[in-house]
Amino acid sequence: MINPFFLNKGPISLLKVYELLEITNQKKNDFNFCNIKDLYSADKDTITFFHSKKYKEAAKSTKASFCLTSDLLKDFLPKTCEPIIVNNVLISVAKITKEFYPNSVEDEFDNKVLSIDKSDYKSVNHGKNVLIGENVKIGSNCSIGHNSIIEKNVLIGNNCKIGSNTIIRNSIIKNNVSILDNCIIGKKGFGFFPNKDKNLRYPHIGIVIINENCEIGCSATIDRGSMSNTEIGKNTFLDNQIHIAHNVKIGENTIIAGQVGIAGSSTIGNNVRIGGQAGISGHLKIGNNVDIAGGSGVIKDIPDNSRVMGYPAKNLREFLRENKQ
Amino acid sequence: MINPFFLNKGPISLLKVYELLEITNQKKNDFNFCNIKDLYSADKDTITFFHSKKYKEAAKSTKASFCLTSDLLKDFLPKTCEPIIVNNVLISVAKITKEFYPNSVEDEFDNKVLSIDKSDYKSVNHGKNVLIGENVKIGSNCSIGHNSIIEKNVLIGNNCKIGSNTIIRNSIIKNNVSILDNCIIGKKGFGFFPNKDKNLRYPHIGIVIINENCEIGCSATIDRGSMSNTEIGKNTFLDNQIHIAHNVKIGENTIIAGQVGIAGSSTIGNNVRIGGQAGISGHLKIGNNVDIAGGSGVIKDIPDNSRVMGYPAKNLREFLRENKQ
Amino acid sequence: MINPFFLNKGPISLLKVYELLEITNQKKNDFNFCNIKDLYSADKDTITFFHSKKYKEAAKSTKASFCLTSDLLKDFLPKTCEPIIVNNVLISVAKITKEFYPNSVEDEFDNKVLSIDKSDYKSVNHGKNVLIGENVKIGSNCSIGHNSIIEKNVLIGNNCKIGSNTIIRNSIIKNNVSILDNCIIGKKGFGFFPNKDKNLRYPHIGIVIINENCEIGCSATIDRGSMSNTEIGKNTFLDNQIHIAHNVKIGENTIIAGQVGIAGSSTIGNNVRIGGQAGISGHLKIGNNVDIAGGSGVIKDIPDNSRVMGYPAKNLREFLRENKQ
Repeated sequence: MINPFFLNKGPISLLKVYELLEITNQKKNDFNFCNIKDLYSADKDTITFFHSKKYKEAAKSTKASFCLTSDLLKDFLPKTCEPIIVNNVLISVAKITKEFYPNSVEDEFDNKVLSIDKSDYKSVNHGKNVLIGENVKIGSNCSIGHNSIIEKNVLIGNNCKIGSNTIIRNSIIKNNVSILDNCIIGKKGFGFFPNKDKNLRYPHIGIVIINENCEIGCSATIDRGSMSNTEIGKNTFLDNQIHIAHNVKIGENTIIAGQVGIAGSSTIGNNVRIGGQAGISGHLKIGNNVDIAGGSGVIKDIPDNSRVMGYPAKNLREFLRENKQ
Repeated sequence: MINPFFLNKGPISLLKVYELLEITNQKKNDFNFCNIKDLYSADKDTITFFHSKKYKEAAKSTKASFCLTSDLLKDFLPKTCEPIIVNNVLISVAKITKEFYPNSVEDEFDNKVLSIDKSDYKSVNHGKNVLIGENVKIGSNCSIGHNSIIEKNVLIGNNCKIGSNTIIRNSIIKNNVSILDNCIIGKKGFGFFPNKDKNLRYPHIGIVIINENCEIGCSATIDRGSMSNTEIGKNTFLDNQIHIAHNVKIGENTIIAGQVGIAGSSTIGNNVRIGGQAGISGHLKIGNNVDIAGGSGVIKDIPDNSRVMGYPAKNLREFLRENKQ
Repeated sequence: MINPFFLNKGPISLLKVYELLEITNQKKNDFNFCNIKDLYSADKDTITFFHSKKYKEAAKSTKASFCLTSDLLKDFLPKTCEPIIVNNVLISVAKITKEFYPNSVEDEFDNKVLSIDKSDYKSVNHGKNVLIGENVKIGSNCSIGHNSIIEKNVLIGNNCKIGSNTIIRNSIIKNNVSILDNCIIGKKGFGFFPNKDKNLRYPHIGIVIINENCEIGCSATIDRGSMSNTEIGKNTFLDNQIHIAHNVKIGENTIIAGQVGIAGSSTIGNNVRIGGQAGISGHLKIGNNVDIAGGSGVIKDIPDNSRVMGYPAKNLREFLRENKQ
């Protein structure tokens, strides 16, 4: 379930793709795409993309009929998949995704919210000035604090407590979750293509999923994913002022102390403990049962059952030995 | 004055304690406890707890009649104090404290607040949409900005300025204090016992005390204490985006720059200067007149009159010599 | 354009300056000052100040008729500029600036705001509970989210998107700028003179300027300047939870990742990339086309076209070589 919320405006024709990408050496026969997906999940009705050799194995076995790629990479694709050669694969992906999901690029405030007192959820235990958007479901025995805004596309389970001054959109919150005050959950991630004079934002069609029994501390920012979801596993607790970037996946029973930041697309395992102010770079894999000391800066993958400290983070004992005082 | 705000639902009987902790080898005579306190402040009507050898001297002279402890530690207690042997002392403390103070565990929004215009404080200089809870006192010549919420159990002195979008609960704010916009003051700390599938939160019966002439910058989070208070000494100034965890004590005339984080139960002296983004681990003692350079990570006690820098923080001159460029 | 917003209560007479600074060995002839300015921009009708040898060249050619300075520095001034000798130059500057601009010292909430529905901007696409202050201008095709407050002295260009729960004051926002949720823009910086028992705040008569096409992420704090402006160049994008202190200048096409902090009066060039959680000390100059790795602590100037990492930040390759794992 990558994208339950953003309306797919497809199908989009191959000719429209050519037009959007300003491709002139066009294939004669048209084709209708019903979606854009990554190499793994694409099927023959979708268009896919292949922008880095890192994904060559996935490319070889993709089921897509067409693939946005570069001249250098096209030969990894199977014969069943027609390459569409472009100068910049990711910018092309952004353009086509935006065509399928035009509402996933900008994050203007939801101007269709109503006062909760005028909504189906007026019997929820709620504070003053609570606003509820369209396509919101709230389970039994929940509470929502003052001035909080549940914008469109939010499913909240049973026994959840939402604090005051918190904004949630494009998110699934499972049962028994506490989200404290002043959080921003589900806004688009910090993803764009730098471009002289005017950067090009890319679409964020992923959502935020917070599983059972989690607690999210005050003033957190948890961004939704671009092409996949941002997800927090069950019974994981976050302290105050934490930033979780787009596409991050965090496991179960993990504990994250104050002011930690996790950059985009990193994966954190189960039973991980992360000390205050630690930072984790993007696109990393942190294993299960890992301890990351407060203040650490993690810039490479960390295997299961490790304890690390330092910047760059290294084996804890080694760090302490080298820094004996 | 540890707990002026949370209603004590005691007395609780010894038999009830046995029942809550599932203890079967029970002492025959019952007993009524009026409170739970630490080893130092306990008297004969209270139950206390002893969970680490670190506190053995306090244990030897405690005045409590009963003490939650382990088999290994019980022999440090005086004959006047009956041990109650449990598997996990702190979890047992959490359960008993929760029984005395059931409202100190969860931090649901205060659903008894009223618009300030309907409260006793309508003549305070205030913005739009200000909410005031029960058991609130506000001194003369104060101001409260738009959308701010003074939840239950807050005493504010004279000449205080509270910004907009700020939430305060369970706190004592002395005279001439400025709290800027978007702060969360007095929520429960990040304290719980990790537990497979569902962590066990522990009660926070401490409060936040901010003394005279302090300034708290925008978007601060200052958590209230668990068994003691979180306190900021007079004329101490905090910049923006600072996180102060539960039980932290900060002295007078101290200056703390932006994005600093101080972990739980640490003590900071008077006339301390802490540079931006520095982090201080939990349970440390930072002396008076200490300078901590921006970005430092402090992981051990720092004596009076020291200047430190680095991660881990060390003597400033040593750090600069080793990092000459 | 240093100060378009704060009302200048001048002129102030030389005799008044003597009185405010408790100077008794007074010059006989009075004089009227229309403003206070730095050495560079002062003209003969303004009073200036000179507090550090670093500015001796500017002092030599100042056009001011009077200058607050110390006995040690007075001889650098030209004969056309009369020194006014004080014990502490900057405290004296604060006192005189406060006399010219009494509203620039404290940041009480704006109690003259109106609901946007009662303002000239009711046709702007806006959420619930939006407040608009005096001396605000909003261009065409803008949106403002729920609970946001545009306090006094804000100019917003065309095609701007302001999120929810955001507060802006004393700022100029150019065209096509997005400011996301929960930001605080334009509050006074963290500037004061430490003083036993009661610190002395200094005036902030600068503003915040955010140029065309910028994006400011959620929960940012961007403080206005003291004697100059805080400015962000066009097409610069900031991620979530970033703190920009007073007087900082950031260039164009710069990208700043989450939780970065930039201390007061530093200058960042064009096309700079700053990774998550990096910190930049105050009064530094970071050149153009600089890459600063996430987690770095920058404590000295960085020349153009450099790539740095570490704490203290050093050449990237050197850092990686020394920290090979």
